[in-house]
Amino acid sequence: MKHTAISQILKMEPSLHEVTVKGWVRSFRSNRFIAVNDGSTIHNLQCVIDFSTFDEEVLKQITTGAAIEVTGQLVESQGQGQSVEIQASSVRVLGTADPEEVKLTILSPKRHTLEKLREQAHLRVRTNTFGAVMRLRSKLAFAVHQYFQNNGFYYMNAPIITGSDAEGAGEMFKVTAMDLKNTKKTEDGKVDFSEDFFEKETNLTVSGQLEAETYAMGLGKVYTFGPTFRAENSNTSRHLAEFWMIEPEIAFCDLHGNMDLAEDFIKYVVKYALDNCQDDLEFLENRLLDEEKSKPQAERSEMTLRDKLSFIVDNNFKRVSYTEAIDILKRSKPNQKKKFKYIIEEWGADLQSEHERYLVEKHFKCPVILFDYPATIKAFYMRLNDDGKTVRAMDVLFPGIGEIVGGSQREERYDVLKEKMKAMDISEEELYWYLDLRKFGTCVHSGFGLGFERLVQFVTGMGNIRDVIPYPRTPGNAAF
Amino acid sequence: MKHTAISQILKMEPSLHEVTVKGWVRSFRSNRFIAVNDGSTIHNLQCVIDFSTFDEEVLKQITTGAAIEVTGQLVESQGQGQSVEIQASSVRVLGTADPEEVKLTILSPKRHTLEKLREQAHLRVRTNTFGAVMRLRSKLAFAVHQYFQNNGFYYMNAPIITGSDAEGAGEMFKVTAMDLKNTKKTEDGKVDFSEDFFEKETNLTVSGQLEAETYAMGLGKVYTFGPTFRAENSNTSRHLAEFWMIEPEIAFCDLHGNMDLAEDFIKYVVKYALDNCQDDLEFLENRLLDEEKSKPQAERSEMTLRDKLSFIVDNNFKRVSYTEAIDILKRSKPNQKKKFKYIIEEWGADLQSEHERYLVEKHFKCPVILFDYPATIKAFYMRLNDDGKTVRAMDVLFPGIGEIVGGSQREERYDVLKEKMKAMDISEEELYWYLDLRKFGTCVHSGFGLGFERLVQFVTGMGNIRDVIPYPRTPGNAAF
Repeated sequence: MKHTAISQILKMEPSLHEVTVKGWVRSFRSNRFIAVNDGSTIHNLQCVIDFSTFDEEVLKQITTGAAIEVTGQLVESQGQGQSVEIQASSVRVLGTADPEEVKLTILSPKRHTLEKLREQAHLRVRTNTFGAVMRLRSKLAFAVHQYFQNNGFYYMNAPIITGSDAEGAGEMFKVTAMDLKNTKKTEDGKVDFSEDFFEKETNLTVSGQLEAETYAMGLGKVYTFGPTFRAENSNTSRHLAEFWMIEPEIAFCDLHGNMDLAEDFIKYVVKYALDNCQDDLEFLENRLLDEEKSKPQAERSEMTLRDKLSFIVDNNFKRVSYTEAIDILKRSKPNQKKKFKYIIEEWGADLQSEHERYLVEKHFKCPVILFDYPATIKAFYMRLNDDGKTVRAMDVLFPGIGEIVGGSQREERYDVLKEKMKAMDISEEELYWYLDLRKFGTCVHSGFGLGFERLVQFVTGMGNIRDVIPYPRTPGNAAF
Repeated sequence: MKHTAISQILKMEPSLHEVTVKGWVRSFRSNRFIAVNDGSTIHNLQCVIDFSTFDEEVLKQITTGAAIEVTGQLVESQGQGQSVEIQASSVRVLGTADPEEVKLTILSPKRHTLEKLREQAHLRVRTNTFGAVMRLRSKLAFAVHQYFQNNGFYYMNAPIITGSDAEGAGEMFKVTAMDLKNTKKTEDGKVDFSEDFFEKETNLTVSGQLEAETYAMGLGKVYTFGPTFRAENSNTSRHLAEFWMIEPEIAFCDLHGNMDLAEDFIKYVVKYALDNCQDDLEFLENRLLDEEKSKPQAERSEMTLRDKLSFIVDNNFKRVSYTEAIDILKRSKPNQKKKFKYIIEEWGADLQSEHERYLVEKHFKCPVILFDYPATIKAFYMRLNDDGKTVRAMDVLFPGIGEIVGGSQREERYDVLKEKMKAMDISEEELYWYLDLRKFGTCVHSGFGLGFERLVQFVTGMGNIRDVIPYPRTPGNAAF
């Protein structure tokens, strides 16, 4: 029997023609009202049955979690919050869900903690919250591709397994096909990688940036969107060992162009969510309001979720140099009163999340782009300014989540880059290909990285990053 | 100076207003004609200079590979094959490219073998061939997302690092944060994974299917598009150790729906390439014709590249059961004359690539979908037919490349699946979550996997899979 998505049905007019839906029972009230959800939308479709005409054996199997097929006429709904409902002429149970077993899972119709849902990550997408989050995640991913493709960028797949460990963005996972019990050794007792699959030491990538740069030098404007990895023992609500990163890289683009791009891009994808995911956002907004009721007034958000998103779309991001930011922070109350964990003493200090949040949430009260950081606290590939002490780096800071984008104009001068690599003990032999970009038609170029899960967190309002990716990987957890 | 993409300029009318382009010199003829490419299109923009008005020092630096900025009026072109050119009023060299050094690279203006280009994979995207291939790859990736998003599917990121090694689709790479020199051991001499980052044994995924199924049971229709890995020592033109896979999974969909989807999907993305990548396809078509000139007549393609693509879009894929296929193969000339390497003796034989190609290229002369394979040669999760010996599997076979899609209706019956896992020694404990899908609201569902690089190979006509991904990973090779 051909069936129609509930998202489509809810847009249809009442009609004498019969429609068929297939989905899962969310609830069955009074032996009469079945709420069916098929994942196409947050909304359930109400199916009304006349129980006197249905086989009792069938009725018994219509329980929460069961898969059913319902056929009937679409009529005007008597209930609240829905325009149409199905007057069922037939109901077929496709897959049962034993109520006794359901009771032991998060499918049971009561409130479960997010921690509990995480333990049953294979079932949690059947809940309203995770359905909404994952639909939003999907729409946001598409908005990312659409933005770049509409703006002349080419999608580029940087390698996941990498033979280069030079970037130093974080601890790496090792990849091997060797027997871990007995890894092969050379005569002097070192691991003999020449016996491994790739005949060399290999790791999981921490960033596709360097490879993306090679492609920007041929295709002009490129972006990556793929998984990246950090083997860091960070058990926080903002870190994952496996996460998806978006990294555009643009030839003939300086730091200003880079900031323009980051702002325009973020506004586009957030607006896309506002325009295309109203129902899911409304649900998540109410979820947040509900969650906040348990908090003291002072800790509650000043804005609702959608207001917060609209605020991002409608306002300019404030651009502030690191030097200005340090001045502001030095003079700030929490610094003066020693309320910061890390007191800002002088120029050159690395900014902590408490400082970033102060700037964004207390001082400017809007998204902030910090730029021109001290060279000493940033990566080797960033373009040195003429002052000799700052680099053309930029970070976009967001309320609630802190750094959402980190980027820079890249050092395009062969000699300067080579010098810096030497000073920072980065192997020239290993990165000869990266230096080659500065040898053959080098040019001003820039790019940034955006952690996709941070974006999804921001848009969905979910507090823990483990709740915005289907199967989170964190220290001690690689279940499923 | 704000610049315009060459792809845009080539669509503009001649004008008195000046335009600026930034790109790389492809050639400089007669001290007068600079061909500039910026990666936005396969086409170069001709920039005409009056050398008498230019500084000789600048002219000397306008060499192949150099990055330049050209400003001037857009005038009607005198040359062939282009409608407009720039009458340059200024040329600025942004990054030089020493001709002596260029000579040693694939940037030098002569014909290089694909093998040679592979060795300099960081530069090859600057060639016409790889520019075209990688632009097509990007467009095809977008078409994939667009197709699924337009058809109500949600994008789902299956985990890359997986704690489950049960699928058995191939040899897996191990992921660890342990010191490979001294992996930790338990008292009885086994590797002590409880001391590793995830506190268990972990691998790189070979397929996101099982996790995608969990999401289809909540969201209805989902697709993955991410990297997958095989640690197999296959040094062929069709295998990579790291490749990108597309895996849709659909609830309430049987094998017929699955075949319909695969056919409709492939036609959509191929048509998207035909409609949106004409220039690059034209170039690649001519490249192929050129390449084939060195082959004997009999080995040359009967169709040009674009004709081959149109043929796919315009014709129905032939659906043939495995049983019919075996009959055809048994009676075929190469089988009778023992020309096949593997002679088909009886029903149950696994089909080799020579057989698939015979069916597609010699017998049916069109794409073929084989279905209902013997259970013994297929994976444990495929739906057993009522005959008890075949499963609802399907493979889509394409001319030139063989299997491009493999899929099936999934076994949705708890008892049958459990029985099969037991028989095939697949740990129930490990895959409890997969069995859960059959316990709580199970339903008929199906899906397939498509190797993205195979698709890119087909559309670009590239013979070696290493030439359709930026940085190929194969045995002994993880450079860059």
